[in-house]
Amino acid sequence: MLSFVNDYCEGMHPEILEKLAKINLEKQVSYGDDKYSKSAEKKIRQAAKCEDADVWFLAGGTQTNMVAIDAFLEEYEGVVAAKTAHVALHESGAIEYTGHKVLELPSYGGKIKAKDLEAYVKAYYADGNWDHMVTPGMVYITQPTELGTLYSAKELKEIHKVCQKFKMPLYIDGARLAEALAADPKTGLPEIAANCEAFYIGGNKCGAFYGEALVFTKNNTPKRFLSRIKQHGALLAKGWTVGVSFDVMFTDNLYVRGGENANKCASKLRAALKKKGYKQYIENKTNQVFVVMEDNAMKALSKKVKFSFWEKLDAKHTVIRFVTSWATRMEEVDQLIELL
Amino acid sequence: MLSFVNDYCEGMHPEILEKLAKINLEKQVSYGDDKYSKSAEKKIRQAAKCEDADVWFLAGGTQTNMVAIDAFLEEYEGVVAAKTAHVALHESGAIEYTGHKVLELPSYGGKIKAKDLEAYVKAYYADGNWDHMVTPGMVYITQPTELGTLYSAKELKEIHKVCQKFKMPLYIDGARLAEALAADPKTGLPEIAANCEAFYIGGNKCGAFYGEALVFTKNNTPKRFLSRIKQHGALLAKGWTVGVSFDVMFTDNLYVRGGENANKCASKLRAALKKKGYKQYIENKTNQVFVVMEDNAMKALSKKVKFSFWEKLDAKHTVIRFVTSWATRMEEVDQLIELL
Amino acid sequence: MLSFVNDYCEGMHPEILEKLAKINLEKQVSYGDDKYSKSAEKKIRQAAKCEDADVWFLAGGTQTNMVAIDAFLEEYEGVVAAKTAHVALHESGAIEYTGHKVLELPSYGGKIKAKDLEAYVKAYYADGNWDHMVTPGMVYITQPTELGTLYSAKELKEIHKVCQKFKMPLYIDGARLAEALAADPKTGLPEIAANCEAFYIGGNKCGAFYGEALVFTKNNTPKRFLSRIKQHGALLAKGWTVGVSFDVMFTDNLYVRGGENANKCASKLRAALKKKGYKQYIENKTNQVFVVMEDNAMKALSKKVKFSFWEKLDAKHTVIRFVTSWATRMEEVDQLIELL
Amino acid sequence: MLSFVNDYCEGMHPEILEKLAKINLEKQVSYGDDKYSKSAEKKIRQAAKCEDADVWFLAGGTQTNMVAIDAFLEEYEGVVAAKTAHVALHESGAIEYTGHKVLELPSYGGKIKAKDLEAYVKAYYADGNWDHMVTPGMVYITQPTELGTLYSAKELKEIHKVCQKFKMPLYIDGARLAEALAADPKTGLPEIAANCEAFYIGGNKCGAFYGEALVFTKNNTPKRFLSRIKQHGALLAKGWTVGVSFDVMFTDNLYVRGGENANKCASKLRAALKKKGYKQYIENKTNQVFVVMEDNAMKALSKKVKFSFWEKLDAKHTVIRFVTSWATRMEEVDQLIELL
Repeated sequence: MLSFVNDYCEGMHPEILEKLAKINLEKQVSYGDDKYSKSAEKKIRQAAKCEDADVWFLAGGTQTNMVAIDAFLEEYEGVVAAKTAHVALHESGAIEYTGHKVLELPSYGGKIKAKDLEAYVKAYYADGNWDHMVTPGMVYITQPTELGTLYSAKELKEIHKVCQKFKMPLYIDGARLAEALAADPKTGLPEIAANCEAFYIGGNKCGAFYGEALVFTKNNTPKRFLSRIKQHGALLAKGWTVGVSFDVMFTDNLYVRGGENANKCASKLRAALKKKGYKQYIENKTNQVFVVMEDNAMKALSKKVKFSFWEKLDAKHTVIRFVTSWATRMEEVDQLIELL
Repeated sequence: MLSFVNDYCEGMHPEILEKLAKINLEKQVSYGDDKYSKSAEKKIRQAAKCEDADVWFLAGGTQTNMVAIDAFLEEYEGVVAAKTAHVALHESGAIEYTGHKVLELPSYGGKIKAKDLEAYVKAYYADGNWDHMVTPGMVYITQPTELGTLYSAKELKEIHKVCQKFKMPLYIDGARLAEALAADPKTGLPEIAANCEAFYIGGNKCGAFYGEALVFTKNNTPKRFLSRIKQHGALLAKGWTVGVSFDVMFTDNLYVRGGENANKCASKLRAALKKKGYKQYIENKTNQVFVVMEDNAMKALSKKVKFSFWEKLDAKHTVIRFVTSWATRMEEVDQLIELL
Repeated sequence: MLSFVNDYCEGMHPEILEKLAKINLEKQVSYGDDKYSKSAEKKIRQAAKCEDADVWFLAGGTQTNMVAIDAFLEEYEGVVAAKTAHVALHESGAIEYTGHKVLELPSYGGKIKAKDLEAYVKAYYADGNWDHMVTPGMVYITQPTELGTLYSAKELKEIHKVCQKFKMPLYIDGARLAEALAADPKTGLPEIAANCEAFYIGGNKCGAFYGEALVFTKNNTPKRFLSRIKQHGALLAKGWTVGVSFDVMFTDNLYVRGGENANKCASKLRAALKKKGYKQYIENKTNQVFVVMEDNAMKALSKKVKFSFWEKLDAKHTVIRFVTSWATRMEEVDQLIELL
Repeated sequence: MLSFVNDYCEGMHPEILEKLAKINLEKQVSYGDDKYSKSAEKKIRQAAKCEDADVWFLAGGTQTNMVAIDAFLEEYEGVVAAKTAHVALHESGAIEYTGHKVLELPSYGGKIKAKDLEAYVKAYYADGNWDHMVTPGMVYITQPTELGTLYSAKELKEIHKVCQKFKMPLYIDGARLAEALAADPKTGLPEIAANCEAFYIGGNKCGAFYGEALVFTKNNTPKRFLSRIKQHGALLAKGWTVGVSFDVMFTDNLYVRGGENANKCASKLRAALKKKGYKQYIENKTNQVFVVMEDNAMKALSKKVKFSFWEKLDAKHTVIRFVTSWATRMEEVDQLIELL
């Protein structure tokens, strides 16, 4: 059966598998101090044109968000995010579990606006009861957002400027960063690294066997970060098992090429949907396609292809989502288009 | 200088002081097992016509909310509340500090609606990603609300019905409960006790020397509650120092009479403001009066009377708040009216 | 019935009651910014000869420990304490609730030794796995200890020196500080303030109506401390209700005089027990008397006087504790002696 | 250079790599609902003769301990463990981070004794202050222990009996379970599953690419466990990346055969050390060899082989550790022996 459920349902780039086969019987160094992790770190630093980049390999996205956010915030601070943000909605309260509130801003197709952010923070400090309220301590955004939309380099810079004004670190969740980089080369790794205090490069959804790469960009790794990771249960004894994926993916631009494939497949699907008269819930240039389906048609389709539920729109319609990936073959897209 | 800043700026009902003087050299039993606390508990049970009521005396409101909410919730659950709720806005993130998210509903003058609540919970369970989201585990409301408005007995019953349907305890923050009871005798302690799983009777703002009385209404005190209180740093060795206030306040209806005085003073002020053409931000029947003031007038007034900032309305106007109390004398209200 | 159960079973110094009566109808300022709290702070500063002292009034001891320790520690640090310490044994896990481990040192009659502390910290930093272990981040001691023993000024200084060497704040729990000050004037408030980063002056057990005074000694109040207190549910809207007690107790040395009375009563009891051939579990110069009782004798005694259980010594003997206080009258001691 | 540093410095069983190569381009189901994880679960159930076994795949050991322990405990409870336990010493305070205290028992070569456990719990409930103390809520042991020693089936049963008597779940950390199963077939998976409420089968140290398998044995999976895992940041979107390793390792007894190899290599090394007159810090039958080395000899050796520091014994001696694994070749052991 065809599947467009999610990009983390794929294996790994074949080049990674090849590398794993080659080095399987070597003895590695633990906790990310191995040569493959170090090589990956170096390549990431170069790709981001960021000499100060300090890179850590973790297993999952929620985990990475929770460890980084908890490390950046003072105990009495919260993290500002769009109300549609992954940290606000879909992490089972992991941020609150660390003791911090998610302070919600309006979402414009998944994005926040610099002026909303500035107004929010100003209002906080102007409030007579400010010290009985949670202090906005940092800002979280996703690139691409949960709805597949993208911040331009200009928008990033504007948001970052507000963050700097109020001394709030900006943190970017790049769970699907490969697709963002592929879709808008002008907002590349260097622009991202320059305009935030930390970000993570998604591996789970972008072709790694598993794992994510957390990058601190400004010589600003939180003190005793290894112990903090361990305390959150997130330290990988076999850290190199993630490092290898990134070492391979940051060779010959494999990471971005994976994103290009995903985007190309999604574009074709999007065009076909338009031609067939489907309403799209939101349009973007990356690898998530959101379609409004009449409920009976949706049920019929679900017998032939896997997709994911997004939200109930009204009594008779549902928004569903198709996700393409580095591994999607154009013939799968064609098969899907025929079914629609 | 006149002061209408807050009702917790007062001392204690003179009858409490009298009692304290009388018993000061007695040796008491610790941790709330003393005879005054026991007597207060019995009187509260009678006033609430709730034989199952189990009463605990704590020092403050945020503390009471945090201990009770944390005890009611499973680790993966959050508390549903109006976006204007004290727990959502003005407790410095105390609920999140215990690891739980505050799930916000729209506020109608400080109140939530039963149908919004039902829609929210239904949407949660219908969501394909429900188990990656924080589960609504209980509901928090205030009576009167932060804006001084009141739930009628009928509204309480409707909200409680939704809570029961989805097995969510309903918890009522009664920081200013005296004024609610005085303003609407049809929504008295028995109606409140019957329609929630726990509530607290405010002491700090209603004439106690200090402290609040937390009431579990349905033989449903969380297991090992004393240890839980201690673990949150909230157990009072000298528990009787709160118990005495409630013992006295629940004698001869002193508690509600205090609320009546506060409401009467506020009513007079409200009528005068209307006559003088002031715009009120919200109208209610209890002891908080919210007035829109032109900024220069506000500054002038602030030299002669203390009040509290509520919020900035626009470039030239601010909402300020006057609070009356059990101790406010009508002549103070008259003096304030003259200044307006 | 006679009672020697605990010193927090008493009311308040009559002078405090008198003051409360006098000011009951004044309107106060909230959150500890009132004139009585300010006056108390000034008097404490003078008594401690510590111009940098910053004083906060909280409701209880466990609460004070938990708020202060959580504020001093980095997330990955723990607090070093004697294995008999209140924070280690009798706070229902309140310190762990804030996320921090209590790192235990051997107890010598309730006290720790500077050389043990130094050896412990050195071993930590010498351990190959140090960054997978909880870092000793501060030190907690009690004065007098849970067993009534006292650190001399010299011992305090030695411990503090080790703390300074390893940049660990020293925090002193003074739940019964009045008795320590009375028993050893050479280790007075100035010596204590000079040799620690923070301490609390016990009120609940030493004659206050309720509450404790937390003192930061070196211009080192944790950032945004008011918000931190609130976040822990510990901020008192009516902060002045504690401040008044301290304002009165630090007038004319009332605080220490209360301790003198308690110690004098305990001394008389101790001498009588010795004469009667009772074995004391530990001897000290303060207001806790620990006696080994044969179980049947203990049961008989319990019908005539209240005391507290300390620990089961062996199959036939139990250690019990008598506590005297600022309020104990010598004739009560005489009555107790007759019963023994 | 030779390396005996740790068993998590190895790659994966070649059979796992083979399987990964075969299935790499399949589309998988997320969050552990895939066929490989399901197959692994079935095989584990059979190997443990435990039809009720419910299996979850997580990334690391500290993480598994923290999620399981936090899920088993009530908020006011702690976990009982040997003072040498991994959770007590080497997890950077991860258990305390979840709010729970580790209650320490004496360690006998890494093991606890049933009678110590019973005495501890009885003393707790007999203590007059029990409800101000952390309640022993569950018990944690390791098999093999951190020192490589083993509980016999009889010892396990005795400990479990005490646990059942006091309604405390028994949880077994099997980070190196392969070696335990290989060393003592009479204390096999069925005996382990029968005598505890949960345990984890170590993968990171026993031949998996990465990950551990957490097993609940008695239809007792904590409610909403998936959400709890997610809340702790531990849910693997690509859960099958761990499941595959276990599916392969539980085919043809590969898991235990790996342990046999490790033990055989360690035995040879142990015998050689004895012959050469080295003092062993502790002797066991599994894959960790602890040797006392004179410091200069240790330094010389460290230039030719990697091992790990265990502890400083005295001014001139250090305990070091050699770890063998499923991947160690006997010729590596021979080379090491020659160097000693």
